[in-house]
Amino acid sequence: MINTILNHKSIRKYSEKKIEKNILNRILQAGIRASNTGNMQAYAIIVTQEEAKKNELLPLHFNQEAVKQAPLILTFCADLNRFNKWCKQRGTEPAYDNFLWFYTASIDAVIAAQNCALAAENEGLGICYMGTTNYTAEKIIEVLKLPHGVIPVTTLTIGYPNENPDLTGRLPERAVVHYEAYNDFSEADIEEIYKELEESDFTRQLIKENKTQSLAQIFTEKRYTKENNIHFSKSLLELVKKQGFWNH
Amino acid sequence: MINTILNHKSIRKYSEKKIEKNILNRILQAGIRASNTGNMQAYAIIVTQEEAKKNELLPLHFNQEAVKQAPLILTFCADLNRFNKWCKQRGTEPAYDNFLWFYTASIDAVIAAQNCALAAENEGLGICYMGTTNYTAEKIIEVLKLPHGVIPVTTLTIGYPNENPDLTGRLPERAVVHYEAYNDFSEADIEEIYKELEESDFTRQLIKENKTQSLAQIFTEKRYTKENNIHFSKSLLELVKKQGFWNH
Repeated sequence: MINTILNHKSIRKYSEKKIEKNILNRILQAGIRASNTGNMQAYAIIVTQEEAKKNELLPLHFNQEAVKQAPLILTFCADLNRFNKWCKQRGTEPAYDNFLWFYTASIDAVIAAQNCALAAENEGLGICYMGTTNYTAEKIIEVLKLPHGVIPVTTLTIGYPNENPDLTGRLPERAVVHYEAYNDFSEADIEEIYKELEESDFTRQLIKENKTQSLAQIFTEKRYTKENNIHFSKSLLELVKKQGFWNH
Repeated sequence: MINTILNHKSIRKYSEKKIEKNILNRILQAGIRASNTGNMQAYAIIVTQEEAKKNELLPLHFNQEAVKQAPLILTFCADLNRFNKWCKQRGTEPAYDNFLWFYTASIDAVIAAQNCALAAENEGLGICYMGTTNYTAEKIIEVLKLPHGVIPVTTLTIGYPNENPDLTGRLPERAVVHYEAYNDFSEADIEEIYKELEESDFTRQLIKENKTQSLAQIFTEKRYTKENNIHFSKSLLELVKKQGFWNH
């Protein structure tokens, strides 16, 4: 278990080997056993294996190779639709149409996703999370026919690995772990925390390719620009409202 | 691995045995190795072990027994503070002060949390997630001294189990798993999906104790009332704005 966790690498290239039904079932069961709020299971897992559906999802994930190659795609959704229907059928009025429950159900969907990711890796499969889910959620809703009360939160591509990348680096533990209270960072702390990452050959090469002065610039000026962040913030928020989580 | 996942039970009663430093380190490393957006590590893990700090957190988790008894509490936060400081020190203007990045960093914090949960369970420890984190986030921020750009997302209580509850039930797989597209539920589907849960001795007893007609009523009229849902939606949203994620 702990080795699966510690050796996680995102895998974006997959062999053509399909995933056996019993393995898929174990992956899904892992998601279903996840901790969740009030045991309400306010999430849904959409399984994509058919070529036609994959081709519809592909542009919504910016045509990433991982989506193109993966024999299995799982889209994890916050889902209050089923729970709301049940409540109404029992003659009681649900009140999960607000921001709290969008967020709560999103958290539960992610816990389920990570269980599925680890169960897949435990079977020798490789996985990659698709952050694009939050950028094109409105169109994913159309493709996967998600009803009111359901929003896609994250996506996993899954398949047998056809690459073996190095383990990616991480910042020193003190960058993310705080004991008893948050120890805010001085300028010197920031210099020390990012030193190894910034001085690595990988980073130097990246800066050269991107024709920038620093790695931080690559993040803010190339990968995650202000314009895109604002655009996708607005579209995501509009969708939260449209799907019925803004009655507060 | 898969057995740890499939046998997960939330544990709320713990023995007095402390958690060894090397075990804590393995749990934290599991969190740090988690998948995360752009390897930005936009999350923070706050470790609570001191009695005084635990006592400050306790009422913010509604005095739940799990918080009272747990020797270890981990609060997982969305954290753009460190990343923003780094960008500014490199002379480039970060634009993560919007809803997209609140949500993105929250997802990453939850993936890290579930890695820590499973690493802990793999050591024979028991865990419980605290949904109260989202209800009292503003006060948790004060207690844990979280700066601008940081928001608590979820909390784990961790300790050696002093109870052995039964595995909780789950709805039939078709309630949460959909193949290729969302198969929306008919009235008959809802009846079938909830039948076993509603007819269980556990549910019958719960209905009797709560003096209601149905389990659905217990959820909507006792546990998660409209009034509370709206109240906590508003306070969470205010906090998202206050902590600097609303510039879009």
